[in-house]
Amino acid sequence: MGLIADLPRNEDGIATALAVLTQRFGARVETGQSLREQHGHTTTWLGNQPPDAVIFPQSTEEVQEIVRICATHRVPVIPFGTGTSLEGHVNAPAGGISLDFSQMNRILAVHAEDMDVTIQPGVTRKALNTHLRDTGLFFPIDPGADASLGGMAATNASGTCAVRYGTMKDNVLALKAVLPSGEVVTSAKRARKSSAGYDLTRLIVGSEGTLGLITELTLKLQGIPEATSAATCSFPSVEAACNTVIAAFQYGLPVARIELLNAVQVRACNAYSKLNLPETPLLLLEFHGTEAGVTEQAEVFGEIAGEFGGTEFTFTTREEERNALWQARHDAYWAALAYQPGAQALSTDVCVPLSRLADCVTETEHKLEELGITAPVVGHVGDGNFHALLLIDMDKPEEIARAEGFVGWLNDLAISMDGTCTGEHGIGQGKAKYLERELGAGAMDMMAAIKRGIDPDNIFNPGKMRLPNGAVD
Amino acid sequence: MGLIADLPRNEDGIATALAVLTQRFGARVETGQSLREQHGHTTTWLGNQPPDAVIFPQSTEEVQEIVRICATHRVPVIPFGTGTSLEGHVNAPAGGISLDFSQMNRILAVHAEDMDVTIQPGVTRKALNTHLRDTGLFFPIDPGADASLGGMAATNASGTCAVRYGTMKDNVLALKAVLPSGEVVTSAKRARKSSAGYDLTRLIVGSEGTLGLITELTLKLQGIPEATSAATCSFPSVEAACNTVIAAFQYGLPVARIELLNAVQVRACNAYSKLNLPETPLLLLEFHGTEAGVTEQAEVFGEIAGEFGGTEFTFTTREEERNALWQARHDAYWAALAYQPGAQALSTDVCVPLSRLADCVTETEHKLEELGITAPVVGHVGDGNFHALLLIDMDKPEEIARAEGFVGWLNDLAISMDGTCTGEHGIGQGKAKYLERELGAGAMDMMAAIKRGIDPDNIFNPGKMRLPNGAVD
Repeated sequence: MGLIADLPRNEDGIATALAVLTQRFGARVETGQSLREQHGHTTTWLGNQPPDAVIFPQSTEEVQEIVRICATHRVPVIPFGTGTSLEGHVNAPAGGISLDFSQMNRILAVHAEDMDVTIQPGVTRKALNTHLRDTGLFFPIDPGADASLGGMAATNASGTCAVRYGTMKDNVLALKAVLPSGEVVTSAKRARKSSAGYDLTRLIVGSEGTLGLITELTLKLQGIPEATSAATCSFPSVEAACNTVIAAFQYGLPVARIELLNAVQVRACNAYSKLNLPETPLLLLEFHGTEAGVTEQAEVFGEIAGEFGGTEFTFTTREEERNALWQARHDAYWAALAYQPGAQALSTDVCVPLSRLADCVTETEHKLEELGITAPVVGHVGDGNFHALLLIDMDKPEEIARAEGFVGWLNDLAISMDGTCTGEHGIGQGKAKYLERELGAGAMDMMAAIKRGIDPDNIFNPGKMRLPNGAVD
Repeated sequence: MGLIADLPRNEDGIATALAVLTQRFGARVETGQSLREQHGHTTTWLGNQPPDAVIFPQSTEEVQEIVRICATHRVPVIPFGTGTSLEGHVNAPAGGISLDFSQMNRILAVHAEDMDVTIQPGVTRKALNTHLRDTGLFFPIDPGADASLGGMAATNASGTCAVRYGTMKDNVLALKAVLPSGEVVTSAKRARKSSAGYDLTRLIVGSEGTLGLITELTLKLQGIPEATSAATCSFPSVEAACNTVIAAFQYGLPVARIELLNAVQVRACNAYSKLNLPETPLLLLEFHGTEAGVTEQAEVFGEIAGEFGGTEFTFTTREEERNALWQARHDAYWAALAYQPGAQALSTDVCVPLSRLADCVTETEHKLEELGITAPVVGHVGDGNFHALLLIDMDKPEEIARAEGFVGWLNDLAISMDGTCTGEHGIGQGKAKYLERELGAGAMDMMAAIKRGIDPDNIFNPGKMRLPNGAVD
């Protein structure tokens, strides 16, 4: 706790901006302590740094007004979706105003023929899919939480379907954002492809609120597949499972989901969900396509898995049976928590080239054993991304320190394997120090130049990503 | 001709930089007129603005040296791949040094298990696929020309396979680039996914040499599909063809290629290739997958097409027959030229949401008729992108003016339909004035801020994109 240093506060500016905002927005500017603390919500790993006030804008124009007031008085502005980010993105280390987008939650237009939808940023992914239910279309990005789509875009979220459908970066067609100047930028039109100018869409997606506040998103949608099949297969080792994944991709199998549970996670799931799975690495798969196609795909996968020692291969196209096969994955998080009662789970997020994934997971398992940390592993292995859920007693500083040491070791390992410290959670505060180790001075200088050009006073989400530049941190 | 204004030249700086470069690189600094003119190669639409010298770097370090010399003397630096860009990207309106990357053409590492490859920017797409032939992998992006991959990245090129495999933006995993400061930036590691910091990869891809000179690329590869099927189908109208495409996507058909030829283009192909196709809009398709899968996909497509009045539906999985079906597409460009002997072809490049594509093509056909311009249309209709090949006698200023008027009209039409003036060719000089109409002042200001932050002296490819800022143009 308290791992994150506070930054200098502009007390006069904050007081003045708060007065002006309150005059303009009245009771919609809230300063109650518990609400403020909730808006600095982080994993327990990182200390809480609440903003000075929370405001609930209802339109792009209101966001512009708020930004202009804050910019005039050089007061930090921190965007807030649902507070489910894992790396301290919503903390306010220099104080300032949290903009809670939950009241900007309208679906503005469904373009079924174009397979896209335009929404406000406070719409959550589940609310969107509920709205789309009767259109035959769906939005495929599924991080664990029912996050807001604005927050998912800001952190470039993904999830289990990324192997087939990509990440937020691949699925945001266009957006509107308010810049630190108060100006609104339209990043692109609705065409599927464009070579018109710098790719502002993908620059703002993943920029964690440090360049622009997203006030509108146009998202690509997918047709709900005619048929879906699911499969599970056990493997003698993580290596055998990973080699199967590599072979399946080289074959060109269009897997929709392919998730790995390591032996510890399977053991936790067996206990929690009363399953009888072999307590060895497990792959869970899903295929999308035509009736004949998804059966063929599952069968081809079964053959490939067999060549690498896969056993207990099972597949089905029926929904109930599919859910039963995927039970272990759906329960993974809760099963992990139940595995060590009283513990809290901290998630790592490295992502490496597929050829290094088996080594990375195996070395992770050995290191965890050496350190005496219990940490089931679940992985979006099609992307080379996996999460070790470190089960930690947050009342024991020694356990926290050991976990912190492990996280640093793992991030460095992934980077040494030509991978990244974050496949989908983002940098925020928690991974700030690994960003430069990963990309080097040239990239940090370029990011700092972009930040300086767009936000010279560093009022948008200061202290995130920690760009190594006076103006930025 | 001469449509593009020259920009002020820094004569002293250019003379000094040339002297320093010649001292350092000797005969590799070339100043012969025809070579210089060839390095300002453009479509005949745009006047030729040759650089003052051409230099052939052989390594990232040499690019750094050249950039530092040019930066010291504030001399423009223009990257050159194969000179096949269509919008004047390689012109030198303020003079300066052209960096020809043809000698940086090594394939540095094929990572077959990771399905990626690291190359120097001078490798052409055909050379890459020849090199990969025995690996079972291929690189799917196929603009018409055998362009260099550095140039394809710089302009965010795509082609007929984008509907399935995406554009350069979706297929560059990481890159190295030299910034105007001479510093090298590594944009990302080789992991398939990353949420680590600003997306420098996708910012540099499509930035047309205005932010960084690409000196290394890591590209995603695809497995050569087990089977391929091809199909053709004729339609009573462009609208019927487009509605078929929309229905096929909503069904979730994973089309690998889907190209439209309008009636004029089919007529030109019939004449050129001695075919007997109905002279109505034609769709050509390709499917990639398993043997059973590609047959099923083609059959499903045939059924959907039938519902919209499609006739003469044919499909095959045999290579020779596939090539015969696609003959019309392969010959489209040459057939168009032969259709109006002596004419040169100028290509438009708008891209609109699918729901507007039929309207956009149909209005285009009417306008062309009204203006008396012959212009076959071929379209990457899965993306909503199409090219009208305007057949123009370049010796007739009146024809050029009429064509120019048409291009402006079409760009504005696409923008009014929520589309873009360029789906894949880029902005360069030719489309500069449409960029702001398309995206508005906010986007232009944000692009200018990025450009200013990274290239404050505006030495990288000045006069391209025409960012509306003193420092930039």
